[in-house]
Amino acid sequence: MNVITPKFPQMLHGGDYDPEQWLGYPDVLENDITLMKQAHINCVSLGIFAWSRLEPEEGCFDFGWLDDIIDRLWKAGIYVDLATPSGARPHWLADKYPEVLRVWEDGSRAMFGGRHNHCFTSLVYREKVRIIDTELAERYSSHPAVIMWHISNEFSGDCRCPMCREAFREFLKKKYGSLDRLNHEWWAHFWSHTYTSWEQIEPPSYKGETAVHGLDLDWKRFVTHQTVDFMKAEIAAVKSAAPEIPVTANFMGMYFDGLDYFELGEALDVISWDSYPEWHAPCGNEVIAMNESLSHDMMRSIKGKPFLLMECTPSTTNWRGISKLKKPGMHRLAILNAIAHGSDSAMYFQIRQSRGSAEKFHSAVISHTGTSDTRTFREVTEVGEMLEKLTGRIYGSSTPAEAAIIYEPQSKWALDKAQGPRNAGLNYFDAIQRCYHYFWANGINVDIVNENSDISRYKLVVLPMLYLWRDGFSDRLREFVKNGGTLISTVFSGIVGENDLCFLGEATEEKLSDVMGYWVEETDSLYDGEANSTVYSGREFELTELCEVLRPTTCEVLAVYGSDFYKGKPAVTANRFGSGMAYHVAANAPMEFFDVFIGDVAPQLKRALDTGIPAGVNVTLRQGGDGTDYIFVQNFLDTEQTVALGGDYTDILSGRSCSGEVTLEGCGAAVLVKE
Amino acid sequence: MNVITPKFPQMLHGGDYDPEQWLGYPDVLENDITLMKQAHINCVSLGIFAWSRLEPEEGCFDFGWLDDIIDRLWKAGIYVDLATPSGARPHWLADKYPEVLRVWEDGSRAMFGGRHNHCFTSLVYREKVRIIDTELAERYSSHPAVIMWHISNEFSGDCRCPMCREAFREFLKKKYGSLDRLNHEWWAHFWSHTYTSWEQIEPPSYKGETAVHGLDLDWKRFVTHQTVDFMKAEIAAVKSAAPEIPVTANFMGMYFDGLDYFELGEALDVISWDSYPEWHAPCGNEVIAMNESLSHDMMRSIKGKPFLLMECTPSTTNWRGISKLKKPGMHRLAILNAIAHGSDSAMYFQIRQSRGSAEKFHSAVISHTGTSDTRTFREVTEVGEMLEKLTGRIYGSSTPAEAAIIYEPQSKWALDKAQGPRNAGLNYFDAIQRCYHYFWANGINVDIVNENSDISRYKLVVLPMLYLWRDGFSDRLREFVKNGGTLISTVFSGIVGENDLCFLGEATEEKLSDVMGYWVEETDSLYDGEANSTVYSGREFELTELCEVLRPTTCEVLAVYGSDFYKGKPAVTANRFGSGMAYHVAANAPMEFFDVFIGDVAPQLKRALDTGIPAGVNVTLRQGGDGTDYIFVQNFLDTEQTVALGGDYTDILSGRSCSGEVTLEGCGAAVLVKE
Amino acid sequence: MNVITPKFPQMLHGGDYDPEQWLGYPDVLENDITLMKQAHINCVSLGIFAWSRLEPEEGCFDFGWLDDIIDRLWKAGIYVDLATPSGARPHWLADKYPEVLRVWEDGSRAMFGGRHNHCFTSLVYREKVRIIDTELAERYSSHPAVIMWHISNEFSGDCRCPMCREAFREFLKKKYGSLDRLNHEWWAHFWSHTYTSWEQIEPPSYKGETAVHGLDLDWKRFVTHQTVDFMKAEIAAVKSAAPEIPVTANFMGMYFDGLDYFELGEALDVISWDSYPEWHAPCGNEVIAMNESLSHDMMRSIKGKPFLLMECTPSTTNWRGISKLKKPGMHRLAILNAIAHGSDSAMYFQIRQSRGSAEKFHSAVISHTGTSDTRTFREVTEVGEMLEKLTGRIYGSSTPAEAAIIYEPQSKWALDKAQGPRNAGLNYFDAIQRCYHYFWANGINVDIVNENSDISRYKLVVLPMLYLWRDGFSDRLREFVKNGGTLISTVFSGIVGENDLCFLGEATEEKLSDVMGYWVEETDSLYDGEANSTVYSGREFELTELCEVLRPTTCEVLAVYGSDFYKGKPAVTANRFGSGMAYHVAANAPMEFFDVFIGDVAPQLKRALDTGIPAGVNVTLRQGGDGTDYIFVQNFLDTEQTVALGGDYTDILSGRSCSGEVTLEGCGAAVLVKE
Repeated sequence: MNVITPKFPQMLHGGDYDPEQWLGYPDVLENDITLMKQAHINCVSLGIFAWSRLEPEEGCFDFGWLDDIIDRLWKAGIYVDLATPSGARPHWLADKYPEVLRVWEDGSRAMFGGRHNHCFTSLVYREKVRIIDTELAERYSSHPAVIMWHISNEFSGDCRCPMCREAFREFLKKKYGSLDRLNHEWWAHFWSHTYTSWEQIEPPSYKGETAVHGLDLDWKRFVTHQTVDFMKAEIAAVKSAAPEIPVTANFMGMYFDGLDYFELGEALDVISWDSYPEWHAPCGNEVIAMNESLSHDMMRSIKGKPFLLMECTPSTTNWRGISKLKKPGMHRLAILNAIAHGSDSAMYFQIRQSRGSAEKFHSAVISHTGTSDTRTFREVTEVGEMLEKLTGRIYGSSTPAEAAIIYEPQSKWALDKAQGPRNAGLNYFDAIQRCYHYFWANGINVDIVNENSDISRYKLVVLPMLYLWRDGFSDRLREFVKNGGTLISTVFSGIVGENDLCFLGEATEEKLSDVMGYWVEETDSLYDGEANSTVYSGREFELTELCEVLRPTTCEVLAVYGSDFYKGKPAVTANRFGSGMAYHVAANAPMEFFDVFIGDVAPQLKRALDTGIPAGVNVTLRQGGDGTDYIFVQNFLDTEQTVALGGDYTDILSGRSCSGEVTLEGCGAAVLVKE
Repeated sequence: MNVITPKFPQMLHGGDYDPEQWLGYPDVLENDITLMKQAHINCVSLGIFAWSRLEPEEGCFDFGWLDDIIDRLWKAGIYVDLATPSGARPHWLADKYPEVLRVWEDGSRAMFGGRHNHCFTSLVYREKVRIIDTELAERYSSHPAVIMWHISNEFSGDCRCPMCREAFREFLKKKYGSLDRLNHEWWAHFWSHTYTSWEQIEPPSYKGETAVHGLDLDWKRFVTHQTVDFMKAEIAAVKSAAPEIPVTANFMGMYFDGLDYFELGEALDVISWDSYPEWHAPCGNEVIAMNESLSHDMMRSIKGKPFLLMECTPSTTNWRGISKLKKPGMHRLAILNAIAHGSDSAMYFQIRQSRGSAEKFHSAVISHTGTSDTRTFREVTEVGEMLEKLTGRIYGSSTPAEAAIIYEPQSKWALDKAQGPRNAGLNYFDAIQRCYHYFWANGINVDIVNENSDISRYKLVVLPMLYLWRDGFSDRLREFVKNGGTLISTVFSGIVGENDLCFLGEATEEKLSDVMGYWVEETDSLYDGEANSTVYSGREFELTELCEVLRPTTCEVLAVYGSDFYKGKPAVTANRFGSGMAYHVAANAPMEFFDVFIGDVAPQLKRALDTGIPAGVNVTLRQGGDGTDYIFVQNFLDTEQTVALGGDYTDILSGRSCSGEVTLEGCGAAVLVKE
Repeated sequence: MNVITPKFPQMLHGGDYDPEQWLGYPDVLENDITLMKQAHINCVSLGIFAWSRLEPEEGCFDFGWLDDIIDRLWKAGIYVDLATPSGARPHWLADKYPEVLRVWEDGSRAMFGGRHNHCFTSLVYREKVRIIDTELAERYSSHPAVIMWHISNEFSGDCRCPMCREAFREFLKKKYGSLDRLNHEWWAHFWSHTYTSWEQIEPPSYKGETAVHGLDLDWKRFVTHQTVDFMKAEIAAVKSAAPEIPVTANFMGMYFDGLDYFELGEALDVISWDSYPEWHAPCGNEVIAMNESLSHDMMRSIKGKPFLLMECTPSTTNWRGISKLKKPGMHRLAILNAIAHGSDSAMYFQIRQSRGSAEKFHSAVISHTGTSDTRTFREVTEVGEMLEKLTGRIYGSSTPAEAAIIYEPQSKWALDKAQGPRNAGLNYFDAIQRCYHYFWANGINVDIVNENSDISRYKLVVLPMLYLWRDGFSDRLREFVKNGGTLISTVFSGIVGENDLCFLGEATEEKLSDVMGYWVEETDSLYDGEANSTVYSGREFELTELCEVLRPTTCEVLAVYGSDFYKGKPAVTANRFGSGMAYHVAANAPMEFFDVFIGDVAPQLKRALDTGIPAGVNVTLRQGGDGTDYIFVQNFLDTEQTVALGGDYTDILSGRSCSGEVTLEGCGAAVLVKE
């Protein structure tokens, strides 16, 4: 069993609580704890933005109010996920040490304001953070309520100040050793951009260099590297007092690609993230749910164990164009979906709604009315009750997967800068989602891992538009197939190496031509609305956006293009290699194609249910330490759905027995165990 | 009778005249006056941008050319609205005193150029303006031609220079007294933004603070405050020589919300404004006309007396995407519409078309051809003749109204920054227009006033989306209803107080729950194209954008939602309170709904005509000092319309008798008096 | 015969070759030359971006690698178009002399990066360029392989540094002599912008002056002037060693309007340009082809002799939203189209595909695969073979034309800044293209010249939307018509003079009213989607965007408006003047109108073929020194087309005889000579 917070090994229910905004309202604070208990809340994140209250002047600390809050929470049986306050700093800190503020791409320094915008290199900032973190750690680590550290908040962004630029140069010196090597890897002789001294290297900027892709890519890598470095310093500070208390940092999911979360994850004890899907958007909840499940799966895959849902909204956000209410039942279903895909918590932003400024209209467990007599409060309470019911069985259970999709943030960084063949949109995430749907719709657990991951443990590996191949990756792919694995790649995969230099040559091992059985002669780009087609398995599918013209060597052709001058040339190929098979889809094919195609070529994979699953229903499986399968069945449609079970189960949410089938109302769900 | 310019108490016809551009063309200047007389022009605005001609070097004045022009105009019987030239400054002034140029949001100082872009705090600028204003006042106040002062031009914009920032801090110190109070009202403990010294306060900027809504709001208030302060200094300068000459400053109508015109109005003798409706736009002239009538009504309501139409175009603008000609008859109708809603003038930008630079394609009474043989010149001449016919009866007459719509610029400022619930658009002006249509279409005069206005004088007060309630406003509303008034509010009203802090609690007096009979539990937001519905008075109406879920306390439910999970819950409510009634419409309802609904619930209000008025026709009423009603009937359609009159009238425009009805051709109008 | 490069008087086939990127790959360089020979390449452009390889440190030159490449190319029979490397500079140059980097409109100086972004005034930059240019000239001018100088690359952009600002002031002093004259011509008394010292003059900037149109226009003129001045300095450097070697600078076609190419052309021996049409775009290849033919025609007309196609892509670009492959046959047809309209070359960007950074996905003769076994390589080879077949007959032949369309870049500059009547789009290039289609579709050669050109040599001159008339132009037009020429002008022509001041007066000679027979009273603007109409020659045509209301004096009315208040007023006029005719089309009429109208009113013009030409087929004619007509017939449709020839011809491409007609497959072409 994977225990996240040993001091309180249970599913967490709670969220961000900001009493520092309400110190002048003692009645509010009193009432809040009463209402939290009523809502079955057992854990709150405290102090995320409280630095100006904790250290109102440089070196003068005021922990009294926090002592009091934590004690009162503890008395009420509510645990604390205590934050380091580095996400936003007090005015005095920026006034006295302007270097803590970021320098922007245009070379100007930001003024004080906002949040998440400190220089991550500044020694002064690191020192000031170390001091307050250490003070907090020494004061609160041994408090029985404090079960986890919440390091900073939603790390993101970058800084171009002189210290960061110098650190970037050091990072590059370490990586490349010589300018000769850097000039080659960055292809910098192009346009006479040859670097002749390290001091010439500046971060990419619209005011200067925008054309050197290797620089773009290494800058993104440096940003992750420096963020990790900053985060590690914070972790060291809080661990100095009590190394056993786990640390987390709240991520922003798969679709935030400013940082390589796989790298951040290595430095953390626990993965947690803030999930804000746009429920009830016109595309339909089943689409939203699938895309969000994918993000949950990635978060789980980072460490291969349960994660925490650290933030989600009890009802609406405040920052969308349209901030819709979660309709009745949606909140419960969204929480269950997180748990189904690996979460061991349901935590919210925010417990109490802010009264003024930017987040005053973000919903909360306790709204401006201060009452429990709201629909949102009642639905949160029901979730709290549900978690208490689930915790004994689900908490710490695992999510076994036999298939993996490779999602490589570093490939996305390179792809985003790749000028040509389709600057109007390469739609990398779409490419992943179109493959992922097969697994989601068929109740097959799948991991979402990066190129450095150990792929030998899977039977099937899918590479959707995997443009950049990091050093050693193609060798691991070759081994995987040779040893019997099934590989599926899609258009625009394997184009460049680690540093964004194109692979040279026709059919080479470097680009895995031996395994795949073809080389790419040219790649066509289609306008939005334009389509080629292919017939596969008796059905015609539209092919869009990018079409590779392949030159087969050893591969078999499974389907061909239906039009254009490359009509009749291969659109889908198969190649036996060693004991395994390698497939390639040479154009952007729709989800419906992958539903059929992956079904045809995938090896036997464990399914949560062996029956047909209606569209819009997601089935996934968590496995207890004792081997018990917990089958989550979730209906994301508004209409009742009946799911055949092929056996007898008990729904541990409702307690009802389900003989051969389970019927779920719109937005309904069940967690089944074999009877 | 309200006399605007005692020296010449007649309707003004004329406009901006810029002889300083033509000093090298004596024939042009000569011809201009001949043509002005021919066009029945009796007043021109002079010197608005003439500073570089009046003071070519610092302290060296050249008034000779202006003396000459004014004398020649006076000899021709043309009066002068003399401008202070502060709207644009000479190069030498900016060269020597760069502080007169504005500092932008990014912290950089503007270079010389453009107009309307001086620092309104700079002591040097104020002093230089005082000197030229005083020179002008001393030289021309006693000239018989000079009837009014035109202070600067179209005040707008802001400055972030050190002097302005310091003045902002002083403004705040005066308002809040202490940082503790400021931190509370701005909810600044949020995100550790606590201010610990006044020097930390900076204007909102994308480079620094964007998240503190109270700061945003107070900055807008400061901009109005400082603009008024600058304007008052100019007024003092021109009044020093002859305090009896009235002052005006040309506003830009209701839809310019950079300044609170209600505050500017207090410092002026006369309200005037520049009206540039987009006639012949695809939406139809009747829509354009209604929206422009609303703006006229607001301008009139600022001081509750006639205003001046200070600028409009004789035919086309030059700054729109599409600069359409005014079709035949449109110019006359547009002028009549202004007069119908309270204008006592028809003045143009511009008398003579500029030859070069930015405004060379803006139309003018006299075009580049320099001839009177143009359609535009002829239509302007007809308007001049019409004004001579009307002036004896209409000039100085009033516009009595028994109903008011509250338009609060300060609420709009707060609404524009309110993050959530619908950042894609809250459409405040639409909300007002949908209510205003009832009055416009039914010939009922209505005032457009702000929250500080005395509402006790009305029978009906409408609050469209009145988000922010300034101190004391809810008490005045309570008194109003208690004493028998009828109140109608619409969705998202009464959310925050004076400084943008949300009202707390369920059903509280602060948010007028006693008067309204409900509290709001949650507010849903709809996508563009998405709609709920309600059935009211037997008709179904679409409800869009925002839907409040109400918790009724004492109110009666007049209509309910037709779909979504809040189907059946109240969409329209009524509550008796004291002797009055309070109504609420909980979602964005269409114009057609308000046409029916306000008709149902409004008390008896005086109508210009008691008959049905065809769509596209506006009827409004001005009342002479002797109690005579002048009924303006205007047809904004292209097709002939017949309006039943319920009595016998004379059309003072055409002189014809109208017995029981009047027939108006497309674009036609009549001004009726009872026979 | 017009010989472009006397050392090698043949059609050039080749393109940009960048061995400096591949110095570490000797096998690649070896293979490249083998493949070039295979592709029938006879000339490459070398060294365009090689400065950092040629002068790795200030004053230290390394020509060894270039010596070697040129020698090896020469041995293989490949000539060299040697570039000056000023288009991009080494890091060390910008490090030591930051003044070589541009200052932007916001006043900040660019950082190192990109290309084509040097200050064109900097004395240091000019000196450093002079040194490297002189070194190259002295070393390579006498090399038998070196046949031409390629000056810099794609000149463009501007700089606002103190030196440039000072040079701008000197330019203006020379032009205007006095500030009085400048203030008048710029109409600067407007908004008090009167200049009282030369130092006050700054380039137009969003941070300062944006409203003075004369300043805007003179700034653009200065940018061309200074670019020419910089270019002339480079030309002097390379000519110092061997003045007989011709110089060119690669232009970017007609639709790049940052520079006045007519002025640049005067300083060059050879016009060359980089052509990147968007083949296979949804609008259809026939539209793309026509627009590109127009650009070819303009390039040819600059010097009235053959030009070089200096760059085009072998297949795809990398910088478009959608980078489509050229389908089979398209490359050959595109090359033939260039030749048909006056090119004596087919050169590519790029010979070998870059491995990394910004241009790595731009297609090349030799792709990343390094093989000749690609479709693109084969199609390039076929073009090489075709050129060898054509060179003996076509090389140096002329393109006689009896008609001209006036395209005036300086009028476009003024038009782009003209505020009103249609800021949403005046679509100047569309206006030209709609007239040009008549010539393109009917096999009639036409020159595209500017207002300074000698128009007396033509029978027909067309002025599409020719807004600005430079000094003396109207007199030349008058002479042209008086002497029997036919003139056609379209809406919004002849509005302003040389410096963007509107013409004054009704019917004046200055605006050619005597020749045209009308004056314009007012100009209406139509929304997108809105249309008026006219009936001409029995057909109804839509009129859009702009409609002038004319006041005829002596003209005949050929067609009238069909609606709006100016229904029945003239839309198309004709006026006899002297021995000629002047026509005017008063609104934006469609291509179909001009097809009919120009056909009706044009004088007899020589046609390449006297038969009807199918839509989508372009026919054009080049004339050999011996008077032989070479008729290029090109089918831009995908379907087979048969063209009647009215005689017997031989197709020198295929060698087949064409008796009375020629049938072309989709994308097919023929070059016909009379048998």
